[in-house]
Amino acid sequence: MATVSLPEARRTIVAVGRWLDSKGWAPATAGNYSMRLDDGSVAITVSGRHKGRLGEEDVMRVDMTGASLDGKKPSAETALHMAIYRDFPEAGAVLHSHSPQAVGLSRAFPEAIGWTLAQHEMLKVYPGIATHDLSRTLPIVDNSQDMAVIDAAMAPRLLDADALPAYLIRGHGLYGWGADMAEAERVIEATEWLIAAELAEIGFRNGSKA
Amino acid sequence: MATVSLPEARRTIVAVGRWLDSKGWAPATAGNYSMRLDDGSVAITVSGRHKGRLGEEDVMRVDMTGASLDGKKPSAETALHMAIYRDFPEAGAVLHSHSPQAVGLSRAFPEAIGWTLAQHEMLKVYPGIATHDLSRTLPIVDNSQDMAVIDAAMAPRLLDADALPAYLIRGHGLYGWGADMAEAERVIEATEWLIAAELAEIGFRNGSKA
Amino acid sequence: MATVSLPEARRTIVAVGRWLDSKGWAPATAGNYSMRLDDGSVAITVSGRHKGRLGEEDVMRVDMTGASLDGKKPSAETALHMAIYRDFPEAGAVLHSHSPQAVGLSRAFPEAIGWTLAQHEMLKVYPGIATHDLSRTLPIVDNSQDMAVIDAAMAPRLLDADALPAYLIRGHGLYGWGADMAEAERVIEATEWLIAAELAEIGFRNGSKA
Amino acid sequence: MATVSLPEARRTIVAVGRWLDSKGWAPATAGNYSMRLDDGSVAITVSGRHKGRLGEEDVMRVDMTGASLDGKKPSAETALHMAIYRDFPEAGAVLHSHSPQAVGLSRAFPEAIGWTLAQHEMLKVYPGIATHDLSRTLPIVDNSQDMAVIDAAMAPRLLDADALPAYLIRGHGLYGWGADMAEAERVIEATEWLIAAELAEIGFRNGSKA
Repeated sequence: MATVSLPEARRTIVAVGRWLDSKGWAPATAGNYSMRLDDGSVAITVSGRHKGRLGEEDVMRVDMTGASLDGKKPSAETALHMAIYRDFPEAGAVLHSHSPQAVGLSRAFPEAIGWTLAQHEMLKVYPGIATHDLSRTLPIVDNSQDMAVIDAAMAPRLLDADALPAYLIRGHGLYGWGADMAEAERVIEATEWLIAAELAEIGFRNGSKA
Repeated sequence: MATVSLPEARRTIVAVGRWLDSKGWAPATAGNYSMRLDDGSVAITVSGRHKGRLGEEDVMRVDMTGASLDGKKPSAETALHMAIYRDFPEAGAVLHSHSPQAVGLSRAFPEAIGWTLAQHEMLKVYPGIATHDLSRTLPIVDNSQDMAVIDAAMAPRLLDADALPAYLIRGHGLYGWGADMAEAERVIEATEWLIAAELAEIGFRNGSKA
Repeated sequence: MATVSLPEARRTIVAVGRWLDSKGWAPATAGNYSMRLDDGSVAITVSGRHKGRLGEEDVMRVDMTGASLDGKKPSAETALHMAIYRDFPEAGAVLHSHSPQAVGLSRAFPEAIGWTLAQHEMLKVYPGIATHDLSRTLPIVDNSQDMAVIDAAMAPRLLDADALPAYLIRGHGLYGWGADMAEAERVIEATEWLIAAELAEIGFRNGSKA
Repeated sequence: MATVSLPEARRTIVAVGRWLDSKGWAPATAGNYSMRLDDGSVAITVSGRHKGRLGEEDVMRVDMTGASLDGKKPSAETALHMAIYRDFPEAGAVLHSHSPQAVGLSRAFPEAIGWTLAQHEMLKVYPGIATHDLSRTLPIVDNSQDMAVIDAAMAPRLLDADALPAYLIRGHGLYGWGADMAEAERVIEATEWLIAAELAEIGFRNGSKA
């Protein structure tokens, strides 16, 4: 389990917010980012800030139940971060991003409970995958203002042997995580890229030239 | 009501112009941006400048009728800013942006008087909305060179209980406002993001894989 | 007629190359940019350089026939710049840009000799247009390696009373010009924006929600 | 044959990684870049680094069989770089990039063994092409985790008289090369641009306005 000090977590989270904003994946106040700390607590972005313009004071500490340890106000979605740290002891960082493409995909088929990613070299970015020659499902769960509902729907699917370290909330955004922030960033970037590639694939398929 | 000094308004408006230009939402000389000042007047961009390349001297002062207070020439659309300050005493900043997507949407259905946004977590960025589980209409009004015509068409709709602090002018662009510039920026960014997400959703729905 | 000194032209052209490259409209070595000089000659980019990475030495001088005045090698397309300076004595700067969207449009309908732009507020960026409530045609001319063929096909159309200061060469790119470089930049930026907005409009129209 | 010193190769490869990442063509740890060195060996990116965040220590040396000369671990795909240096003695730099569009195209038609590019002025960016008025095929080869399989499928096609210095691996990415890094960059940039232009062309053709 990778853990970091609070000062390092603050610097890292501020930087990752700027990076996600530069991609267009952190609009307005959307998103929250967290890292597991070396004292057993978690550093996470406070509620309501623009994630591309974070200061270090916008990163707070919560305990493993998601309760504030420093008087600052966490976002309701802190509970989804805690669920990931609870279910995956090796998880060291969690990101929640919002691209138009990912959310467009999650809404396009209202009954779909996942989107199949197959035969993509980019799948090898996910930990434990060593070939393009397989198929994985990016889970899609319905949105709710009650985090326990989302958690209850997702938890069993995340424990599947072939589960990706990422899932979509319909009409909302993408969660992704890793052993450390660098891995969480790779998971988010690869997942967003895969979604963009699938959208381009559909666009080309609508043509008739090949 | 949030008000600022003229020097602060100048710095803020120059910066917001660079930000909107970096998004591709301020092409050529399109757009105008304003803030309510602490002396009861309004600071607004002068006519005809590239909004990504503003200097502080490109921000002028007008009174609440839109008349120049410093000899500089306001844009005709100053009247639409003034209508928002008139109708919404709590409005402290108004932005008028131009993305290809927003204008494409406004033109795609020439008879449409709005575009429905429903079941989007991003709706919570708008002030007063606390759940994704509702539906709001982004109004679309026909373009006119007579600002009074646009104002007359929009004013009653803006006073609707469920009105968003934003509307589209067909073939023209997006207006959005907030209590202060940070809120106005969030309204614009969320609205543009929602439009981009809906376009991606349509793109995925044209495929057949899910 | 706006003219500038050679040193000013060099600085301006280097900067405009970086700007166009940042937009994705100057890939590889594509594009050439020119300005009318105060001595009656023209400054233009040399052949074969990456336009986002120009140095001032990559801007050369040619006479009004397009012949080199300083031993550097002009691009074959210099002739199209000269045709614009010849036909429009008030033209002070010419830009030739390459976006995927503009070229995609020029190829989508192989028989089309133009693309109609109507009811766009952005049309007011073009000099002499004061309302959105009209229609203008962006001419499309077939590509040729013989510049005289392109010039012969375009010249009569450019002299039309309602002609825009811009045209597309099919499968090639966009020409735009203005009284000075700032106006030429606005013409290019507005034309590219209009093309992007029309593509988004088509995308939304393929959906069925409104 | 253009060769460079190891220090120059390191600086150049670090910079090209940042450039490709800024375009969105180097997600997560995808991609690898190489240059022929003046001592007959090759400098190439090590395995598993984010290509937009390379340090000079992330560039290693391999011999012409792809074996490490400095104890660092090369990527499996080093073999595909070596195949290009083997088949093209004039090649001085090889790039392997990953855009959503290029990969979307490679997947859209699972049986296609190439994509035809015709009547594009941008084709003139490829060495040896002097007119838009011709047709070239961008080869598409099926992906494999066995580089020898990809090499065996591609090698004969690359030696075709009309072969482009670029090919797509299905569901994976784009290879492109040149006499030096500047030429390899132009090949990648032009190929990505051509693919984006073809996608925009399809988008416009789905409309009905022209």
